Amino acid sequence: MEIDSNRTTLAKTLQNRRQRLAGLIDFPVMLWSGCRMGRNFPANRFPFRASSHFLYFGGLPLERAVIYLNFGKLELFIDDSPPETTLWHGEMPKREEIAEKIGADAAFPLSELSSRGEGVATIAVQDIMTRHQQAEILQRPLGLGNNLSGRDRDLAIAIASLRMYHDPDALAELRQAAAVTVEAHKAGMRATNITNFNIHSPLQKTQTEATIRGAMEGVIIAHNMTCAYNSIVTVHGEVLHNEQYHHSLQPGDLLLADVGAETEMGWAADVTRTWPIIGKFSPTQRDIYNIVLAAHDSCIAKIRPDVEYLDIHLLAASVICQGLVDLGIFRGEVSDLVEMDAHALFFPHGVGHLLGLDVHDMEDLGDLAGYEEGRVRSNRFGLCFLRLNRPLKSGMLVTIEPGFYQVPAILNDPEQRVKYRDIVNWERLAQFGDVRGIRIEDDVLVTEDGCEVLTGGLPTEAEAIEELVN
Amino acid sequence: MEIDSNRTTLAKTLQNRRQRLAGLIDFPVMLWSGCRMGRNFPANRFPFRASSHFLYFGGLPLERAVIYLNFGKLELFIDDSPPETTLWHGEMPKREEIAEKIGADAAFPLSELSSRGEGVATIAVQDIMTRHQQAEILQRPLGLGNNLSGRDRDLAIAIASLRMYHDPDALAELRQAAAVTVEAHKAGMRATNITNFNIHSPLQKTQTEATIRGAMEGVIIAHNMTCAYNSIVTVHGEVLHNEQYHHSLQPGDLLLADVGAETEMGWAADVTRTWPIIGKFSPTQRDIYNIVLAAHDSCIAKIRPDVEYLDIHLLAASVICQGLVDLGIFRGEVSDLVEMDAHALFFPHGVGHLLGLDVHDMEDLGDLAGYEEGRVRSNRFGLCFLRLNRPLKSGMLVTIEPGFYQVPAILNDPEQRVKYRDIVNWERLAQFGDVRGIRIEDDVLVTEDGCEVLTGGLPTEAEAIEELVN
Repeated sequence: MEIDSNRTTLAKTLQNRRQRLAGLIDFPVMLWSGCRMGRNFPANRFPFRASSHFLYFGGLPLERAVIYLNFGKLELFIDDSPPETTLWHGEMPKREEIAEKIGADAAFPLSELSSRGEGVATIAVQDIMTRHQQAEILQRPLGLGNNLSGRDRDLAIAIASLRMYHDPDALAELRQAAAVTVEAHKAGMRATNITNFNIHSPLQKTQTEATIRGAMEGVIIAHNMTCAYNSIVTVHGEVLHNEQYHHSLQPGDLLLADVGAETEMGWAADVTRTWPIIGKFSPTQRDIYNIVLAAHDSCIAKIRPDVEYLDIHLLAASVICQGLVDLGIFRGEVSDLVEMDAHALFFPHGVGHLLGLDVHDMEDLGDLAGYEEGRVRSNRFGLCFLRLNRPLKSGMLVTIEPGFYQVPAILNDPEQRVKYRDIVNWERLAQFGDVRGIRIEDDVLVTEDGCEVLTGGLPTEAEAIEELVN
Repeated sequence: MEIDSNRTTLAKTLQNRRQRLAGLIDFPVMLWSGCRMGRNFPANRFPFRASSHFLYFGGLPLERAVIYLNFGKLELFIDDSPPETTLWHGEMPKREEIAEKIGADAAFPLSELSSRGEGVATIAVQDIMTRHQQAEILQRPLGLGNNLSGRDRDLAIAIASLRMYHDPDALAELRQAAAVTVEAHKAGMRATNITNFNIHSPLQKTQTEATIRGAMEGVIIAHNMTCAYNSIVTVHGEVLHNEQYHHSLQPGDLLLADVGAETEMGWAADVTRTWPIIGKFSPTQRDIYNIVLAAHDSCIAKIRPDVEYLDIHLLAASVICQGLVDLGIFRGEVSDLVEMDAHALFFPHGVGHLLGLDVHDMEDLGDLAGYEEGRVRSNRFGLCFLRLNRPLKSGMLVTIEPGFYQVPAILNDPEQRVKYRDIVNWERLAQFGDVRGIRIEDDVLVTEDGCEVLTGGLPTEAEAIEELVN
């Protein structure tokens, strides 16, 4: 854990956040940071990731810490490291130093927590060890995700209403994550060029997805950041959550890379680019790429306060349908096609989601942050995966990530084949066999008069992408 | 999870391992692989790491799988992915395919487990979710680490006696991990050269520990491996388990990098090198470096079957004491110095440990694998951290990692100051202020007539290190 002495604004930022929270609720709150978990033996632990709600109000990735928030006051509960650990881990900041850094009003050892749990609201953390402690201190079971109730639910709604609109300190972090992510993607494109291959290791005989992943994540690590999520770096973009990296890169392949950095304080970026291994899109790849790009650009052009995110999603669906009609893959009127979810044959996910301390921001609260109160997930094939359904407001950060995929599980599904038999020209589609998956994703901040693409430093045009690979 | 179709020997290797296990115990065994845990929200999970005991007998990093071993037979329990996950994760291997791959005698869904728990021995996995399932199926609490009892303890002893001596398939994996680790260290040394800086990102204004870490881990990721443990890449080598990477690299600094790769099947390497940022050791740094190197080389020269690992540790202690006497930092007879643990002032850890599927192999079993039956940890300052105390045998893989550190928590401890006041020439020591921490670590296989350094492709001599940095 590193306390950045340059960040004199941290205490102020945190004070501001908890005062805004105090304006929304009138009961005390405890937020736990969580602890590390053993990987293959107790001393070999996964890297620590503090709970995002803790980070928002506590500011620092402290292990085994609890903050108690009440009417704008912050009390910190954390144990000082025992002296014998100094040998192994060096001098750690003391409770009082940390308390000062985050502007706590008081600080206590963890043992003082036990008497404080009555009437307190909390959000369950991810690690079960800490979750047991939460239930023990509060002397009640904890709800999770969409099953929050009582004060915990009121707290979650209050926190979501704050975390949804990023303050300057949050934005500064998010911009850093975005900037490093842009560099990581550029490094990935450069590493795809076969003439740059083998500079790092004589052991590799063929270039694989892992080769490119190494180049990209290496940049993120070099900036002392972590990956905000498990990277997708694949020539099989049609597998939406692909976490395999062993395929070798073949000349006709497209590589889809969905890789994002996370700052030390936990703020995330989330970017996808798709590029041709040989540095040149085939005509069919370029046709589809330009449809996805048109959807991407149209959506971003429309983002401004008060626009419904659902409409952005539907716009992406329309642009994709129009493009596929123009290519002769779809038949019919665009509005009819979208109405019957035809877009979801090739674009079976939502156009994006909230982004902040979590890559799917506040998804631990189920749909509470993503969905405006009173709205629920659609059960339509073309809408059910949409993670965000709210009117956009200034200060929100969202991803825009339309895509086109030929997913065998969808396209070979006999039911879909029947349902869409009059709409899809399967022979025409067969000519686009070299397009397995394309996605273009950027991080877009809603501003007062429109939007700003935080990851705009990374090109999207096909020619610019080709240039970076070459 | 990737099933490597080239590895036709996997089923044979696993069969051999379980038949050897059957020769040691006469009760049934269940081994769980474990599951992934949420990082900041349930769908954003830490990478999966299967339990090492499962991997040893089950061979593949399968999530949520159980193997039932009885008299040399293997039954696999795993659920096929539900069809709807194909959309997101692609086609996954079916239970029957996996069963064939690992040579299972039968395969069942997990629901069949519940009736099979009676009289079964197991080893607790690290993730608590799975541990709850283990206790539920076996209908009893599980012991951990040094607190195993009954059949679980008998099982642990049997497994330790197998895993301690690496078979050819294990060795092939370990050699791969070692080879990639060697390349990672070379990349780290190259990246230290300021003229190679900034090729990856225009965002970095100063070279930090993270810069080098990124270069090293990038190589590991590029080979589709993971880090076997959280890397130590630090200019503060005196903090033994340093996991901070933010310090900038200064011309007079030594960088200590303890970084090791782990293969997809879970086999680890563990290597440390220490190099000068400017590519040239200062005279004082070189003096101490050569003492640590002499200890390293002497230990490796002595490794062969039947040698006590404790004696290797004591040899390292002696060589270090002798070197410090020669430099005028210590006064006295080497044997007296070691006897009174003077070496531990500067070398306060063990000379190494077992290496295999875990970087500290089988440390989840407490000292059961590391310590010969009947032996327990010493409480001596100079011996208590020794993780391995057995006679070496052919097939064992150990690390050899002597070091020299100026740890403030030790050297400024008034008790130590008094205890060692006649032994340490503090004024002379003060001249070595630019040596905060040096460690040289290699992975050494005990062979029938001596040993083989699996990581020998990475130089250790000061001049060769300097050449790699320059």
